[in-house]
Amino acid sequence: MASGNGSTNGSGTYFPNVDPVKYAGPDSRDVLAFRFYDKEAVIMGKKMKDWLRFSVCFWHTFRGSGADPFGRPTITRHFEGDDGTDSMENALRRVEAAFELFTKLGVEYYSFHDVDVAPEGATMAETHANLEKVTDRMLELQKETGVKLLWGTANLFSHPQYMNGAATNPDPLVFMRAATQVKFAMDATHKLGGEGFVFWGGREGYMHILNTDMVQEMNNYARMLKLAIAYKEKIGFSGQILVEPKPREPMKHQYDYDVQTVIGFLREHGLENDVRLNVEPNHTQLAGHEFEHDIVLAAKLGMLGSIDANTGSESLGWDTDEFITDQTRATMLCKVIIEMGGFQQGGLNFDAKVRRESTDLEDFFIAHVASMDALAKGLRNAARLISEGYLSRMLEERYAGWASSLGTQIGSGELPLDRIAEMYTTVHELEERNGKAHGTTSAKQEKFIAVFNHYIS
Amino acid sequence: MASGNGSTNGSGTYFPNVDPVKYAGPDSRDVLAFRFYDKEAVIMGKKMKDWLRFSVCFWHTFRGSGADPFGRPTITRHFEGDDGTDSMENALRRVEAAFELFTKLGVEYYSFHDVDVAPEGATMAETHANLEKVTDRMLELQKETGVKLLWGTANLFSHPQYMNGAATNPDPLVFMRAATQVKFAMDATHKLGGEGFVFWGGREGYMHILNTDMVQEMNNYARMLKLAIAYKEKIGFSGQILVEPKPREPMKHQYDYDVQTVIGFLREHGLENDVRLNVEPNHTQLAGHEFEHDIVLAAKLGMLGSIDANTGSESLGWDTDEFITDQTRATMLCKVIIEMGGFQQGGLNFDAKVRRESTDLEDFFIAHVASMDALAKGLRNAARLISEGYLSRMLEERYAGWASSLGTQIGSGELPLDRIAEMYTTVHELEERNGKAHGTTSAKQEKFIAVFNHYIS
Amino acid sequence: MASGNGSTNGSGTYFPNVDPVKYAGPDSRDVLAFRFYDKEAVIMGKKMKDWLRFSVCFWHTFRGSGADPFGRPTITRHFEGDDGTDSMENALRRVEAAFELFTKLGVEYYSFHDVDVAPEGATMAETHANLEKVTDRMLELQKETGVKLLWGTANLFSHPQYMNGAATNPDPLVFMRAATQVKFAMDATHKLGGEGFVFWGGREGYMHILNTDMVQEMNNYARMLKLAIAYKEKIGFSGQILVEPKPREPMKHQYDYDVQTVIGFLREHGLENDVRLNVEPNHTQLAGHEFEHDIVLAAKLGMLGSIDANTGSESLGWDTDEFITDQTRATMLCKVIIEMGGFQQGGLNFDAKVRRESTDLEDFFIAHVASMDALAKGLRNAARLISEGYLSRMLEERYAGWASSLGTQIGSGELPLDRIAEMYTTVHELEERNGKAHGTTSAKQEKFIAVFNHYIS
Amino acid sequence: MASGNGSTNGSGTYFPNVDPVKYAGPDSRDVLAFRFYDKEAVIMGKKMKDWLRFSVCFWHTFRGSGADPFGRPTITRHFEGDDGTDSMENALRRVEAAFELFTKLGVEYYSFHDVDVAPEGATMAETHANLEKVTDRMLELQKETGVKLLWGTANLFSHPQYMNGAATNPDPLVFMRAATQVKFAMDATHKLGGEGFVFWGGREGYMHILNTDMVQEMNNYARMLKLAIAYKEKIGFSGQILVEPKPREPMKHQYDYDVQTVIGFLREHGLENDVRLNVEPNHTQLAGHEFEHDIVLAAKLGMLGSIDANTGSESLGWDTDEFITDQTRATMLCKVIIEMGGFQQGGLNFDAKVRRESTDLEDFFIAHVASMDALAKGLRNAARLISEGYLSRMLEERYAGWASSLGTQIGSGELPLDRIAEMYTTVHELEERNGKAHGTTSAKQEKFIAVFNHYIS
Repeated sequence: MASGNGSTNGSGTYFPNVDPVKYAGPDSRDVLAFRFYDKEAVIMGKKMKDWLRFSVCFWHTFRGSGADPFGRPTITRHFEGDDGTDSMENALRRVEAAFELFTKLGVEYYSFHDVDVAPEGATMAETHANLEKVTDRMLELQKETGVKLLWGTANLFSHPQYMNGAATNPDPLVFMRAATQVKFAMDATHKLGGEGFVFWGGREGYMHILNTDMVQEMNNYARMLKLAIAYKEKIGFSGQILVEPKPREPMKHQYDYDVQTVIGFLREHGLENDVRLNVEPNHTQLAGHEFEHDIVLAAKLGMLGSIDANTGSESLGWDTDEFITDQTRATMLCKVIIEMGGFQQGGLNFDAKVRRESTDLEDFFIAHVASMDALAKGLRNAARLISEGYLSRMLEERYAGWASSLGTQIGSGELPLDRIAEMYTTVHELEERNGKAHGTTSAKQEKFIAVFNHYIS
Repeated sequence: MASGNGSTNGSGTYFPNVDPVKYAGPDSRDVLAFRFYDKEAVIMGKKMKDWLRFSVCFWHTFRGSGADPFGRPTITRHFEGDDGTDSMENALRRVEAAFELFTKLGVEYYSFHDVDVAPEGATMAETHANLEKVTDRMLELQKETGVKLLWGTANLFSHPQYMNGAATNPDPLVFMRAATQVKFAMDATHKLGGEGFVFWGGREGYMHILNTDMVQEMNNYARMLKLAIAYKEKIGFSGQILVEPKPREPMKHQYDYDVQTVIGFLREHGLENDVRLNVEPNHTQLAGHEFEHDIVLAAKLGMLGSIDANTGSESLGWDTDEFITDQTRATMLCKVIIEMGGFQQGGLNFDAKVRRESTDLEDFFIAHVASMDALAKGLRNAARLISEGYLSRMLEERYAGWASSLGTQIGSGELPLDRIAEMYTTVHELEERNGKAHGTTSAKQEKFIAVFNHYIS
Repeated sequence: MASGNGSTNGSGTYFPNVDPVKYAGPDSRDVLAFRFYDKEAVIMGKKMKDWLRFSVCFWHTFRGSGADPFGRPTITRHFEGDDGTDSMENALRRVEAAFELFTKLGVEYYSFHDVDVAPEGATMAETHANLEKVTDRMLELQKETGVKLLWGTANLFSHPQYMNGAATNPDPLVFMRAATQVKFAMDATHKLGGEGFVFWGGREGYMHILNTDMVQEMNNYARMLKLAIAYKEKIGFSGQILVEPKPREPMKHQYDYDVQTVIGFLREHGLENDVRLNVEPNHTQLAGHEFEHDIVLAAKLGMLGSIDANTGSESLGWDTDEFITDQTRATMLCKVIIEMGGFQQGGLNFDAKVRRESTDLEDFFIAHVASMDALAKGLRNAARLISEGYLSRMLEERYAGWASSLGTQIGSGELPLDRIAEMYTTVHELEERNGKAHGTTSAKQEKFIAVFNHYIS
Repeated sequence: MASGNGSTNGSGTYFPNVDPVKYAGPDSRDVLAFRFYDKEAVIMGKKMKDWLRFSVCFWHTFRGSGADPFGRPTITRHFEGDDGTDSMENALRRVEAAFELFTKLGVEYYSFHDVDVAPEGATMAETHANLEKVTDRMLELQKETGVKLLWGTANLFSHPQYMNGAATNPDPLVFMRAATQVKFAMDATHKLGGEGFVFWGGREGYMHILNTDMVQEMNNYARMLKLAIAYKEKIGFSGQILVEPKPREPMKHQYDYDVQTVIGFLREHGLENDVRLNVEPNHTQLAGHEFEHDIVLAAKLGMLGSIDANTGSESLGWDTDEFITDQTRATMLCKVIIEMGGFQQGGLNFDAKVRRESTDLEDFFIAHVASMDALAKGLRNAARLISEGYLSRMLEERYAGWASSLGTQIGSGELPLDRIAEMYTTVHELEERNGKAHGTTSAKQEKFIAVFNHYIS
């Protein structure tokens, strides 16, 4: 590791000390090289980059300050030349730096909120003009580099006017403010050819049940989605509308609690065909489910639009937005992606941040490289696992009964309850007489896990 | 407290040392008297007993053993004369003891599982015959005492054959077994004039995601509900079908996670008009919500059928099924009940148990009395709170904007997104010019809580 | 409630719309009056104010901004005339406003961090000079109003230089910076006659176990405490040194996890006689214990110095610093205070904040009044509970065996293990023969709770 | 995998269908073969088996029933010939089966509770005689097979007489019962040449704080440990006395909460030199710490005696005792073992169980093989990680300041607080003047993790 562990002789304007990251193979000890991610390599008929569709997020990587509830900002510089101001000049430098980072990392997608890229003006009109100007430059950079927009979104949670909700605010004027931001941000996303537009309802929930009218608020939230869907049609935006579930934080309780809550809400308002989900495992964990639960379920129900690829901390009760570096989790996640045939318009968006104590510019790169590589390894593992087919055959055998004639009859509903009871009373007596008993077949959980682990190491 | 703190000179066959519990007023120090529950007293136009509709559950109070994952049974006697066996004789004594307890406590409802009241036989037919015989005796006791059945249910989780699920089992024969139990238990509930039939899907979930086909399993679960609904029609049972949400335990993940998950599931399968929810606050807490969240939400959405009145422990991660004794929680809960106009066919069912270290017969009584009294105090508190009207007026004012003409226009959807944006851009500019800003009106959480607390003490 | 629910015709410079808060009795519906707190009223031989020793904290009430990880500040004005700057002029106005608030609330104590009251200068010397100047003014205000300092502390967590720890930083220069702040803050506390000096190790912990040397860090932390203790002696400061436990946040794992962890740490370093604990229930809850556990335990072990009177949210995994308004918890807490004979140098310090959506100046008052009143009610409840003596007698009876001659022999260690085994083998055989069994006496948990609740309502 | 995925043509009396498990190399797909565990292979100068010292526990693997709080036993047969009774004959068959399983798995250690191996008698004397008889047979089997006893323990939690505590019971007679069991179990452990004797205080805690005298109870618990230590000396038992921390379950709060709580408790009673800790990661997780925290800390403090190698479920709030199969965790754990130079008298004891749905005899084998193999892979990973030395060098550099002359001066305490403040005030001014600032050096967490992960895959 003479050259190793991160020291490089880079190039470029904004990250001169970091070279474009290259594939160096599994034996490399360089934290700024890929050991498993070989973007053009073909796995199960598709290039790695097309399975994984990596996306860098603008907010954490270019606007994260490292401030926490007990401490001031620590990350004061996101690139060389960053003057730390919220001026238009710095905003334009920032998007250039971003495209340098995207390119050096070799990711082909990114995501952003309206307020990440352009400064707020004194009026909404000025804010809008700023956004237009910066996104014009972003469009040029997209063309120059080939990097594309995975999705855009409007930040409806940071401004003090959203403290009591955006679409769910007791004050209709705030709803209007939110609607205005949504319109501008959707226009910008459309202009940039974004493949999606995300709603994350950071303030759509309540802080206390006593001063809240939940039903009124949820209906207003549905209204906002309906307005956005209609507007999407009007302007011919072809990206997917996505809702991102989260259970709590910043509000004590948020309406988009988890995948199943959101799907139920969409059904109640007849929106299940117009909206897909952007699932974030860290949020899933905060809702009390396992890391992969919501991704698996959304995928199986045909509702998974995109993934915010991050993870939380097992012992902390809030959203830590850490990079996925665990191979087991990466494998589980890539198994789902392969099984659903890959993303249509979504991708693996790194909604993840370096820790506030990670104050070197190279830390942004090290973090992304480590996670891209873990997911690349996960993809390789999952591909082998699926190709060899042991697990899927074991699963099929386990449910074989439901494919039998009896299973089909029950499943279709053609046998009524009393007829089933009559049949079973006879079967049961026969079984007891013969000393046989159904229903105690081993579920083989340890074997399923053992077989899965054959593909990890 | 000469007589006090529990020592009594009782009567009756099964609990000879416990007298019928009486209302003794707030200054009493007797743990076997009511200080607030005066069942015939009228509160806001209805008798206390008719608001609260207390119900004792059979399983904890007559079958709970005190065993836990680390220790053997400690509660070996539930009434005088209990011989501890699972014989029919003991089963018949047990139901008599139960009605003595119901009567002495002064509750008018109870609830049970099939296996609580009658021993299993060698065959399903024998099991069925036992259930018939014991429920015949229960019907007589109902007539004698005036005590009624709140709801019945089938235990689809204890038997080893359900280890891999009941309706969601990979083996259709187990589905059939479950269907058979459901039929028999619904017949018994119908015979006893029960006002509801509950599904609690103890084993309807998964232990590991790798060996599970979630979609197949959830579809089968919906099938079971559909069969039960059809059968209810067929036999003319007029009680409500209820599903009881729970997030985990015994399965790692259960499909009926919480109120919103269940409502979404019902909608997916077109069952939202045929099923109501039996909500248990302890389960709500395990799902990561606050004690009252699911009850409030189900009530506001018109889906609250009945309540399993219990609570959990703030520091434990499983279902402890404790009696509600906290006045704040009791008040919150009774506020919901009054606001929805009382129960139709549901009630407050004590799905709660004495601790395994509480081995005296009187402990069953002390526990129920304490909780009935806490809820009675909660009802009195809530009635005053609602009558004086401060809280509801504060809430109304908070949302007044949505009743305005602008609010109505937005809420109804008549203004499209771009029109709202246009309007707001103008409004915002005006506000900025005038130094005014909407959206930062205090939410007054502390005041709402303070006013609420005026009715607690 | 003509005047009611908070509207007042106040006086004073900084909170002109709020009158001094008065005792109005239990029937009041005014959220700016006390219903139970009658400060001079004597309860069990001591004035209410002397049992409760209420203290207002400077940081939340005069420096809290309402910012959260997802949103900008919402609370921009803490008093009339606040210009929002960090100038010395505003700092001096702020302390005057603070004493107006203390006086109007009728609390006799307050607490502060160095950085709460005085702006940082360009150098440590300037910072020190600012602190001196502001605390001189605070001393004058103390004399004018009679309000006293409960405790002071140094903020060793907000500054970016503390991001990797203060006393536990890998860089000794940061340790030195922390030591410098401790010296200045202790000098100021001494000058103001503070009754305590608190260490809350906000950054004393780790973010990841891989880059951390826990033993080195904990030893350095002990070193800091030793330096402070020696300095306390040197300057003749007679207040108590206090450590405040907290399990996590801001660091992933903090060394002062909970009361027992801290006591063990103090013993390891021989500091158990020089340090007492400042226990905060919200932190206790985050450590997985119940609200009251750490307070009860610290008190019983003679280690409870002071209490940060707040509470958390049952469904959130971080420190929400809410005001205690729950009567049950308040009663439990006051029971401990009475049983330990009251505080020596500590008090009930409101380390609690209004929610970020509570943007009215009166909200600060409503919040404090509600909590003072809940604790006052708790004190009244606890006093009656202790005076009537049922609970303590029940407890004494439960442990009577250990006061018997056999219990004493075992407790003192005079019987060796093999002798006990021999004795018991005989006893057990006798008991079995006689059909008796010890060890299954009911623990009467439900009765203990029921009796406790007799004093709540 | 022609023969594959577990089907074998075994031998032996009790598990005739399972062959002795062999090392087959990383490419194997057989769940009954080792891919990484090659017991005699030498890693860093020591055989794999001597680093890992695997131990099978008797309770889960030979007595676990699969019962859970909601369901009856599912695992009714632990070996061929098991008649399911609690007779002496079956007990003797059971120990023979156990040694066949130990031998086939190739583990050299096991662990047990008194009640696991021998049935209770009608009297303590009879119970003792049964234990003697069965352990005599175990001693013979140890000699025949070379398998050794890692540790023994007394079950002081299952019997109803322990419901209110064992050593901490309010009734001294129960303390005596516990002491009697401890004596017998320690005698048996001594006879079998056990290398340790464990105390797990399953009932040493409280269910409710109101009916509990914590200080009395903890003192009695210390008394029990002192009696055991004295008895150990008396009989010349050379194994280590171990305490196993656990935070909750079965009691709501347990006194042995976690490693730091136990160490503090031992210090308070002067027992820190006589007792070591048996740390279980699943318990660590339940205490709110990360999987590895308590193991790392106990090891660094020289207090780690042995490890109960298991893990919990991230989304469940109780002890699930699952087998470790995750390579990352296994690597972290083995890193600690290597860094402390291996175990002295402890080992990796599988306090882990198959799920209740895993009802095949082979499932016991599959589970152990998977975990042994994951830990073997972890050992190989950790050995490479330590040998290459990147991580340890990075750590050393991070703390280099404390090895400097300034660091040493501060660390030793020779500089008093005011002297440090004086020095730092000067340093700070210089730094500010030069535009330099210490304390913001990147902690490089992402790099530490990335380097660690270089050894996982």
